[in-house]
Amino acid sequence: MNGAECLARTLVACGVDTVFANPGTSEMHFVAALDKVPGLHCVLGLAETVVTGSADGYGRMTGRPAATLLHCGPGLANGIANLHNAKRAFTPVVNIVGDHATWHRVHDAPLASDTEGLARCVSQWVRTASAASTLGKDAAAAVHAALSAPGQIATLVLPADCAWNEGGTVSEPLAPPSRAMPALDNVRTIARALCSGVAGMLLLSGPALSEQGLRAAQRVAQVTGARLRTPTQVARMARGRGRVPVDRIPYVIDLALGVLAGTKHLVLCGARPPVGFFAYPGKPSTLWPADCTVHMLARAEQDVIGALEALADELGAPREAAIPDPGPKPEAQRGVFKPDAFALTLAALLPEDAIVAEDAVTSGRALLAPTFAAEPHDWIQVTGGAIGHGFPAATGAAIACRERKVVCLQADGGGMYSLQSLWTQARERLDVVNVIFANRSYAILRGELAAVGARPGPVSEELFDLGRPELDWRLLANGMGVEAARVDTLEGFADVFRAACARRGPFLIEFRI
Amino acid sequence: MNGAECLARTLVACGVDTVFANPGTSEMHFVAALDKVPGLHCVLGLAETVVTGSADGYGRMTGRPAATLLHCGPGLANGIANLHNAKRAFTPVVNIVGDHATWHRVHDAPLASDTEGLARCVSQWVRTASAASTLGKDAAAAVHAALSAPGQIATLVLPADCAWNEGGTVSEPLAPPSRAMPALDNVRTIARALCSGVAGMLLLSGPALSEQGLRAAQRVAQVTGARLRTPTQVARMARGRGRVPVDRIPYVIDLALGVLAGTKHLVLCGARPPVGFFAYPGKPSTLWPADCTVHMLARAEQDVIGALEALADELGAPREAAIPDPGPKPEAQRGVFKPDAFALTLAALLPEDAIVAEDAVTSGRALLAPTFAAEPHDWIQVTGGAIGHGFPAATGAAIACRERKVVCLQADGGGMYSLQSLWTQARERLDVVNVIFANRSYAILRGELAAVGARPGPVSEELFDLGRPELDWRLLANGMGVEAARVDTLEGFADVFRAACARRGPFLIEFRI
Repeated sequence: MNGAECLARTLVACGVDTVFANPGTSEMHFVAALDKVPGLHCVLGLAETVVTGSADGYGRMTGRPAATLLHCGPGLANGIANLHNAKRAFTPVVNIVGDHATWHRVHDAPLASDTEGLARCVSQWVRTASAASTLGKDAAAAVHAALSAPGQIATLVLPADCAWNEGGTVSEPLAPPSRAMPALDNVRTIARALCSGVAGMLLLSGPALSEQGLRAAQRVAQVTGARLRTPTQVARMARGRGRVPVDRIPYVIDLALGVLAGTKHLVLCGARPPVGFFAYPGKPSTLWPADCTVHMLARAEQDVIGALEALADELGAPREAAIPDPGPKPEAQRGVFKPDAFALTLAALLPEDAIVAEDAVTSGRALLAPTFAAEPHDWIQVTGGAIGHGFPAATGAAIACRERKVVCLQADGGGMYSLQSLWTQARERLDVVNVIFANRSYAILRGELAAVGARPGPVSEELFDLGRPELDWRLLANGMGVEAARVDTLEGFADVFRAACARRGPFLIEFRI
Repeated sequence: MNGAECLARTLVACGVDTVFANPGTSEMHFVAALDKVPGLHCVLGLAETVVTGSADGYGRMTGRPAATLLHCGPGLANGIANLHNAKRAFTPVVNIVGDHATWHRVHDAPLASDTEGLARCVSQWVRTASAASTLGKDAAAAVHAALSAPGQIATLVLPADCAWNEGGTVSEPLAPPSRAMPALDNVRTIARALCSGVAGMLLLSGPALSEQGLRAAQRVAQVTGARLRTPTQVARMARGRGRVPVDRIPYVIDLALGVLAGTKHLVLCGARPPVGFFAYPGKPSTLWPADCTVHMLARAEQDVIGALEALADELGAPREAAIPDPGPKPEAQRGVFKPDAFALTLAALLPEDAIVAEDAVTSGRALLAPTFAAEPHDWIQVTGGAIGHGFPAATGAAIACRERKVVCLQADGGGMYSLQSLWTQARERLDVVNVIFANRSYAILRGELAAVGARPGPVSEELFDLGRPELDWRLLANGMGVEAARVDTLEGFADVFRAACARRGPFLIEFRI
């Protein structure tokens, strides 16, 4: 068996069933191996940012790594931005990056680059395979690394001769890593702090935002009065009626400081200490007040849910959380786009069990609170600030959950980073309704220019303006085989969104705002 | 003066007049500075691969660096593939990569990454600015590094506070670096080898492919019978009638070995020893015969033209090169697409003084010889093997040379990597005729699969097939404000290409082949 086949068989043995790919010459033996080895669904992306962003969406929805197949350093580089988002989300991903044959490297051929160096910038685990005979072990170690809590990016660089040489041995999966429970002493200390009656806040991330984690957090909130919040961007959150409603720390620095003002005890539950998304002149980096004590209940890689439940038990909270009633489901709104009104309309129309992939930047800031009363759904977000995440993440989530409706909320600026995703959605007939917020600008930057104390002028206006010429998203979608419509009112959006949700397959709605 | 303004003023003082940009929050002060400082034309790209590829095209046509403006590690990463191509072409480029404020770094905010590590993978010169007061010196050093022979990628990482703090001092340009002349002893040794009458070949790259360099090489060829060739991909080459016709070493390994077979003395003129683009089982990495002596006349960073002229003088060659007559200009052909027939048609129709930007992969392999008799033109190619170079390189070349017609020959697979370039072409009203070779597949990979000895199957066919669904390039172009037409015969192409060349502004021709 050659190395490539051994690699494919080991991936299957370790539970990998999906490969997002954009291959080149150095990956040809692995591609050929995929024809011999059943059990791997190969999904083609026409740019690597689609490939890696899809693997991120897939991993967030399944908890298992998809493999990516990328071509040499430049192919990996094209996928790094969405790997950065995946790394910040603790998504398990296994990258297979083909490269020159070991004996060809010394010649520094045109496509040769520092592939391993690039990989190290965005992976927790990197290995360059050295022989076909050890490739099975490499692959099993890569999957194990990806699955290690809280979830990691593992990159295996695959020189072409390691793939085509004979001598491969399939490896068994390594024992899955487990999450360690934090010390109970620590739980008791935090319980004492919270029950002292002063203003507490639980900052929830990772597993704490699953339905089970949220319930445990709610038990704590019930008996202590502690507020619940998430970081500004989260990997995945269970939401909608019947789930504990939790809003996020706002992106805008002054709003974020306002939310944390008055907090005396900040308890981190799978979250890191909250800091500004960017630095601004004269503003602090850290968001908590000077007299606030920051407690680490459980780090991201620990048993976050177990720790939350232990804390609730320690506090003597009732076993069952009381889920707050979010009130009646909102009604669809009318008129031009306003963030709040759009959010209410979305809450009215979102199908049950939908997955929302959001990379909506300015248009998406008001989406969370108004959608507490929507049907139950999962929400995934761009976690590392690298825009262009929505389309590919939605694509990967739809591959992972074929039976669920995926709604992609994508800003137009970020959408242009990875519009090629629409082609993969058409090819795989994925059930994704893509909503483009077409404000025809990098609107966020207008606010950011003011926030850093700078003044706009002709050049800055030029650099923030996407309206000259105007992008026609209907044509862009149609050009890649995706049907599309344009709307400019909320009632128009509601009509088209309802119809798009009632059918199967990808659709795009350009909302001109 | 704050650091940002000092940076902008120093760039202008050092001869930089164009900034290709996709900015974010951490670059806002630099954007604001661009409003205060005259002399910098800012060109917006909607994805960073457009930004860096345009800077490459611009630098190849002007010999001067454009600046890029990129946002943090992920923004840089999105531009690395085309920086890799620029690095292989020895194009001068100055990257300005905004990043978190120095005092914000420790908090590892969501967008933080190893920006400098990423930069090192693709730059010969990297510096992270440490203060506003030294930013002028940093900028002058970056431009100097970019201009150092043979041309380099210089990346300046710009923490936000270094941009917004006061205390900047504009720096004068550093003395431009010069190219060293190789030792004359070496020239004499090579002259003796070549005049010994055995089969010689000059491999020409870099300045050797300018009109002057080619004439010097032709003088050597005239008196020695040495053949002239270029590497498989070149940064830029002067071509067409009145220029010395030189073909390239073919991409396909067996053809490449065939071209070099019998060569006894291989003289490298700004070129590196020729090696296979990839490794293949059972094939050599190096392309010259075992009994061939490889001579280095001048390295890329040396005075290549001076060395060629010294060699010609040493050989007693006539002062003026005799330029071979390429024969009559070919006529436009009829019928379906065939590489040779297309090349003849292009040769018939190419406007005088055009710039051809080629990233045509399989469809482009036969283009060079049939176009020897075309009107004089310059030809630039994807040099590092990272596809998606044609559209952005054409865009940057058109910014650099507003008065010249640019013809972009782009494979459809690579075109999908950087189609966002079309929007910049529309916005800047650039005079580019884009030709898409729509073979609806990664056709090169079919050949490569066979070349590495693997067999096709359903998965490989799936991964090479871009035809399900079919891309409609007319809609994609129209969606970004570029007019377009589809043709499926050479006569249809000729009609549309003539019309497109007769007007100004961008146009796209989808050639279904």
